[in-house]
Amino acid sequence: MSKLPTQVKIVEVGPRDGLQNEPGRIPTDLKLAFIAKLAESGLREIEATSFVHPKAIPHLADAVEVAGRLPSSAGVTYSALVPNQKGLDRALESGIRRIAVFTAASDSFTKKNINMTVDESLATFAPVVKAALAAGLTVRGYVATAFVCPYEGDVSKDRVLDVTNRLLEMGIDEVAVSDTIGAAAPTDIDATVGHLLKAIPAEKLALHLHDTYGTARANILAGLQIGITTFDSSAGGLGGCPYAPGASGNLATEDLVYMLDRMGIATGVDLQRVFEASSLIAKELNRSLPSRQWQRLSAACK
Amino acid sequence: MSKLPTQVKIVEVGPRDGLQNEPGRIPTDLKLAFIAKLAESGLREIEATSFVHPKAIPHLADAVEVAGRLPSSAGVTYSALVPNQKGLDRALESGIRRIAVFTAASDSFTKKNINMTVDESLATFAPVVKAALAAGLTVRGYVATAFVCPYEGDVSKDRVLDVTNRLLEMGIDEVAVSDTIGAAAPTDIDATVGHLLKAIPAEKLALHLHDTYGTARANILAGLQIGITTFDSSAGGLGGCPYAPGASGNLATEDLVYMLDRMGIATGVDLQRVFEASSLIAKELNRSLPSRQWQRLSAACK
Repeated sequence: MSKLPTQVKIVEVGPRDGLQNEPGRIPTDLKLAFIAKLAESGLREIEATSFVHPKAIPHLADAVEVAGRLPSSAGVTYSALVPNQKGLDRALESGIRRIAVFTAASDSFTKKNINMTVDESLATFAPVVKAALAAGLTVRGYVATAFVCPYEGDVSKDRVLDVTNRLLEMGIDEVAVSDTIGAAAPTDIDATVGHLLKAIPAEKLALHLHDTYGTARANILAGLQIGITTFDSSAGGLGGCPYAPGASGNLATEDLVYMLDRMGIATGVDLQRVFEASSLIAKELNRSLPSRQWQRLSAACK
Repeated sequence: MSKLPTQVKIVEVGPRDGLQNEPGRIPTDLKLAFIAKLAESGLREIEATSFVHPKAIPHLADAVEVAGRLPSSAGVTYSALVPNQKGLDRALESGIRRIAVFTAASDSFTKKNINMTVDESLATFAPVVKAALAAGLTVRGYVATAFVCPYEGDVSKDRVLDVTNRLLEMGIDEVAVSDTIGAAAPTDIDATVGHLLKAIPAEKLALHLHDTYGTARANILAGLQIGITTFDSSAGGLGGCPYAPGASGNLATEDLVYMLDRMGIATGVDLQRVFEASSLIAKELNRSLPSRQWQRLSAACK
């Protein structure tokens, strides 16, 4: 097997990417308890909320309160998604120190998702990113549909490189290359991310994988084998069910940690503690979560 | 990425390993319709049933009838599990031309599962395999718990090599190295199967992976990268739910085909047809199946 990294960083996106796609609404205090447990588990970066317009995602209307009351855990960085200047104003008000901006590698997707072309989204972000950096914040970027677009099919790796480069040129320090619909296979990761790595150092890239078609962990392996060391995941596999109960979009943090633990790759994350965090949400939603490890540990608890 | 094979063989185990672990009982005619659809999908080897004692697995009490009425599809090989001489007698009566025998790499597992040590199971098989070969049948072997035993933990790769070699020495033509509890990670595949490949040609080995902890497809990738070209899977992910609904033990044929298709690795199998086969069983069981592709296609049909 190709040489594997000895340690990786997991970026926990459950409180944002997970909860925003759940049908049930979580009380603010419970969100904060969830985030506190995640921080205790050893996760070093947690995307806590999103400063989108409350009407767009009512679940995250409490973003300023969540971001303002985040537990101060040594060594934990919290971030929040920011779509525009108004979002940045709210982020600054909340005191959060890291933001994330979201675009894609296909125009059809951004048009449907944020009603802009990719170029328009980059033009919208540019002053926001500049203002955030000027205020001393750091900025993460997402490139959605980096492999397959639900409307356009296969996405050109040169297009992904171009969008990624333009985000990095703004001063964004890490770009999460995202398999938004979970359709990529290991060969896609190898081809597209391998292409990016010819021009961009691995530490500026993360892989944000969805498990819709069950390929996420094979894709993690493909990423590890070409030197990627930052991976996004969502506690419990939270993030709604695009097709059926159990078929979550998001790769579960517990399952990622299990595989990396077993491979001897250090994450610093305690699987059991992540499970306890996810269980707070499962209890509130009164349902089982898609994570295999969550299911195993839940059954073991009964 | 390491060089990948251009084509692989999938051994469909749904009718046996899948159905024997489902709580619902499937009528014989429906089993045969399921198998016929699987054969139409392009699958070239299908494990159709098991000649265990009907009291041990009542679901497969119709083994002689199923094996005797298998559709004759050009190029499709059917097999059936045979535990002992009595099972072989029934197999010969049914007219099936390929059998499979089952042992493991850990004594605690075989003791619990078939009430014999591994050595005792091999001693029991030896005359059965000899008689089967003498009758012109071919024989497949399973080595369960080849990576992790639920009672003993990690299993020694030398032990797996020893058991595999002893099966091959009997005249068995293919050994399915099995991650019975689905706990292996890609590094386990690389270490143990890589060890076997130093002494055994790849065409004599198959990987039988369970997806209990969600690592099956990453393990498939690890297997492909070291030259394994035969993989077992179960249509729809049939095979019961060890922990919770959606958390099947068996790797789903549809999901394996999806990943291999996307990687440009030929299987000769039509995903849509496998889905149609699985759907026959899903309808009878009146439930959703764990396969991600099954879930996607079911939702699309509504």
